[in-house]
Amino acid sequence: MEKETIEKMKNQIQQARGLVSADCVLKNCTIVDVFCAELQTADIAICGEIIVGVGEYSGRNEIDCKGAYVCPGFMEGHIHIESSMLSPKQFTKTVAPHGTTTVICDPHEIANVAGIPGVEYILEESKGSECSVFVMAPSCVPATNLENSGAKLTSTNLEEILDLEQVLGVAEMMNFPGVLSQDEEVVKKLALGKSKKVPVDGHAPGLMGKDLQAYIGTGIQSDHECSTVAEAKEKLSSGMYLFVREGSTAKNLEELYPVITVQNSHRCLLVTDDCHPEELLNEGHMDRILRKVIQLGLDPVTAIQMVTINVADCFGLKDRGAIAPGRIADLVIFEDLEDIRPKTIFRRGEILNDNKVTARISKDELTHKYPDVFDSVHVNLEKLSFDIPAVGKIARVIQVKKNQLITESIELPVRILDGFAISDPQQDILKLAVVERHNATGNIGLGFVTGFGLKKGAIASTVGHDSHNITVVGCNDRDMALVIETLIKQGGGLAIACDGKVEASLVLDVAGLMSTDDAAEVAETFSVLLKVATKLGVQVSDPFMLMSFLSLPVIPHLKMTDIGLVDVDSFCHTSLWVE
Amino acid sequence: MEKETIEKMKNQIQQARGLVSADCVLKNCTIVDVFCAELQTADIAICGEIIVGVGEYSGRNEIDCKGAYVCPGFMEGHIHIESSMLSPKQFTKTVAPHGTTTVICDPHEIANVAGIPGVEYILEESKGSECSVFVMAPSCVPATNLENSGAKLTSTNLEEILDLEQVLGVAEMMNFPGVLSQDEEVVKKLALGKSKKVPVDGHAPGLMGKDLQAYIGTGIQSDHECSTVAEAKEKLSSGMYLFVREGSTAKNLEELYPVITVQNSHRCLLVTDDCHPEELLNEGHMDRILRKVIQLGLDPVTAIQMVTINVADCFGLKDRGAIAPGRIADLVIFEDLEDIRPKTIFRRGEILNDNKVTARISKDELTHKYPDVFDSVHVNLEKLSFDIPAVGKIARVIQVKKNQLITESIELPVRILDGFAISDPQQDILKLAVVERHNATGNIGLGFVTGFGLKKGAIASTVGHDSHNITVVGCNDRDMALVIETLIKQGGGLAIACDGKVEASLVLDVAGLMSTDDAAEVAETFSVLLKVATKLGVQVSDPFMLMSFLSLPVIPHLKMTDIGLVDVDSFCHTSLWVE
Repeated sequence: MEKETIEKMKNQIQQARGLVSADCVLKNCTIVDVFCAELQTADIAICGEIIVGVGEYSGRNEIDCKGAYVCPGFMEGHIHIESSMLSPKQFTKTVAPHGTTTVICDPHEIANVAGIPGVEYILEESKGSECSVFVMAPSCVPATNLENSGAKLTSTNLEEILDLEQVLGVAEMMNFPGVLSQDEEVVKKLALGKSKKVPVDGHAPGLMGKDLQAYIGTGIQSDHECSTVAEAKEKLSSGMYLFVREGSTAKNLEELYPVITVQNSHRCLLVTDDCHPEELLNEGHMDRILRKVIQLGLDPVTAIQMVTINVADCFGLKDRGAIAPGRIADLVIFEDLEDIRPKTIFRRGEILNDNKVTARISKDELTHKYPDVFDSVHVNLEKLSFDIPAVGKIARVIQVKKNQLITESIELPVRILDGFAISDPQQDILKLAVVERHNATGNIGLGFVTGFGLKKGAIASTVGHDSHNITVVGCNDRDMALVIETLIKQGGGLAIACDGKVEASLVLDVAGLMSTDDAAEVAETFSVLLKVATKLGVQVSDPFMLMSFLSLPVIPHLKMTDIGLVDVDSFCHTSLWVE
Repeated sequence: MEKETIEKMKNQIQQARGLVSADCVLKNCTIVDVFCAELQTADIAICGEIIVGVGEYSGRNEIDCKGAYVCPGFMEGHIHIESSMLSPKQFTKTVAPHGTTTVICDPHEIANVAGIPGVEYILEESKGSECSVFVMAPSCVPATNLENSGAKLTSTNLEEILDLEQVLGVAEMMNFPGVLSQDEEVVKKLALGKSKKVPVDGHAPGLMGKDLQAYIGTGIQSDHECSTVAEAKEKLSSGMYLFVREGSTAKNLEELYPVITVQNSHRCLLVTDDCHPEELLNEGHMDRILRKVIQLGLDPVTAIQMVTINVADCFGLKDRGAIAPGRIADLVIFEDLEDIRPKTIFRRGEILNDNKVTARISKDELTHKYPDVFDSVHVNLEKLSFDIPAVGKIARVIQVKKNQLITESIELPVRILDGFAISDPQQDILKLAVVERHNATGNIGLGFVTGFGLKKGAIASTVGHDSHNITVVGCNDRDMALVIETLIKQGGGLAIACDGKVEASLVLDVAGLMSTDDAAEVAETFSVLLKVATKLGVQVSDPFMLMSFLSLPVIPHLKMTDIGLVDVDSFCHTSLWVE
């Protein structure tokens, strides 16, 4: 036992007993007691980073809270930070003022691009930041074998990741068909989680009945994919923690709200899964969801439990999640219990200061240490061809729908010129390409999409779930090549070109997924991209989000990977031509 | 990952999905869902030892439960098995038919006698028994430095114990004054628990306010010593799990019952702390407490949660505590939810069979392997003297009270003969000796006790909290020597002698604390001892229990150790004579 640890504990005992003044005391707090779901009027004594006492205290530094509410810092139980397009440093800087002090993330997007170094980068950049960032080890990289990602994580790799500091368990097991069919590698990964006695998160949309029982029996402890009351109730009763998701894209809170009871609420968490930068800036993070669920009618203290102690209990984080002795002094102060708006945040016993740059490692160091993260776009453009020989007349076309990740497969006649199928903006049938971008293999999946409404130019992104190849939709091959060239040059991101000119672009130089710029800049540039897209005829509100899911062959019904068209229902590649 | 583990998981998935028949199915169960606190009608499918599914199942072996209630096996969160005077094998055999399938024990009694080998013995004899026995590593051996025990456990020893299999954490930190005064060894032990991230149990009767905050801040997560509503509420709100104790001696259930609410019940457990053999036989174990708390008015399902999932959650035992896939098939079947009487017990997927001898190791092997456990009484009787030179007239006499562990210190004139103070049965002032019995040091603490009412003979025991020296109370020195001689010969236990003849005795050959005989025999012999004691004039209902606490210098007000009289209030030895 280190001398320092012992001395620290002794000092805490002395301050707790009031033998010496506490380092810092928050006077006159209305404390949210997350153990008994009650409110309590008292002072909070803090020694260093740690809460040492709740009661009547005096401190060397005293802050009068004048009866304001004080609750534990908010904990995000499930998010892919990459969804914010912000690097961990920028992400934590953005969410911290909203009261988030702990983030449990699944870095499976960056892991698909850069493997273990990608995960290590997330941990490294998060060190000393405004929030504690914990990682769940990505369990499904790549998501399927119908595509090529930048990295694969075997069960052996998973074990390596689990041994890293700040890694809590195994991230969402999305491959539930693999669980049910007893896929060897999948079972190995689950057995690993079980033998290490770490939490294993689930992802099983719609799974119920015997298949759900089989899935849970492997040790999977949570699910954030419930979309109906019946599904959520069954999962809770079968022993899963219910992660009620209310992200920027998928929103289940209103639907699932009736499931939460006084009896089961301690097994329910509120999570986001994904968050877009403009929403984080304008609406907030966990505070946004808290306000919403309270507005729906949930008792505010119960709601707070769902983003504090319940998260701590679910992931075995005994050092936080409550205002009680021995726990980290991560605190949120606010005035109105019915409309929680964080006013002051305490982070590890100190007032959170916007201007304090806390991340310890510079971008230069990061770039040097994680070259694959900062140099992730490898495409040999000269060798690519967007030609689609017209071997038929009727093609399987992917139909996107407004704000839905599910696509339809429809059969349409396509425009043919000189023996090649080409984009037909008039009919809103556009060429779609998914270009492998990790190892410059030259792989390209080619087909057609309808529903975007783009009339001119081309639009491309290095964000494409989950393998993150380049997805491009265009009215002509020249602009398609140009946007890809742009993304190669800028090391990843989003771009729109028209008539041989780049109209707008967002640099995502971290694995082609995230920016090192701050949230305001990213949101601003992103809004410009959306405006340009609209100007060019795009009819969906966020074409980049829709595009990023065009390549995810686990969401029905027709998708495109770098290997070609995928019929998700049969989980096989299929041919573009019907006849 | 072992091949076997993988194959097991695959097999479980297949049976859960219903692709093949389950090994065993309990049909038509009314299942207690401890996650949502609801009842559910369904079948339970079991593969080997593990529950794989709840739903509609068919099995190779089917048992029709005809609508009976089925709940998870009961879990005891805090007990000293030694209090039952039964060896672990006999204890588990006794409690298992009452529905107990998991026992978390603190073997601090045997640890005081035999140190680490004592703890190892408990684990070894529990292997393969009717219950899973987990151990919390004893934190306070010896209890004080005012006495001599058979062994001492330093923080280094504690670390060794924590590394043993089946050891969950650090047992009750009884030395709360040591915590508050930042005793180096105490702080080291607590820091050890914190650094290993294991549960640390508490024991802090009456501790509240700032001192409680200091105590909890060291990482202590539970308390089973609450005796008032205010104390229990404060401890719950400060983050402790509330262990509501209802043992054979200390009973707090009625007093604490009003504390339990729907909001906090998941942080409450029911525990016994200590259990006497006749009560285990006649009244039961956790089922006894369940019936009582339900009778008091608690919702039966909430009550069941307090001895199943809450215990599992508190100690991080994710593999049990609920009827859900992936958990051990420890089940209790019963007919009446308002009056829970276990009818059939499933232990690891099989019906518990009374006749099945499950402990794997023989007594001979145990004796050979743990010599210090089975040869624990070392006293050189010839060198002992019970003489108390009459250096004064008025002595500090320990006054025992009916069924109370607290004693009073009263000043009384004692009978003097030939310059020596002697027993005075007429006035009920009897000689009391505590004889060191571990290392034959010859230490003997001598004094007087009143309140027993013994008129003739002497009574002795090798059970004496927590150092377990020999405590003897007698009307004359000859019978006192005789009972001690008896205990030496039989290797520990309880004995009564009168007029130079041994009237009755109970052999406790396991560390002088436990018997290898079964509960019925132990209870029968014990009842004979009580009858003989009554015949000889004893007026308290259980003189052995009272005697066993006469030497515990942490309970007010006047106690006796092998070093002499202790004034507990000043926590110092004191002289026998007032004047």
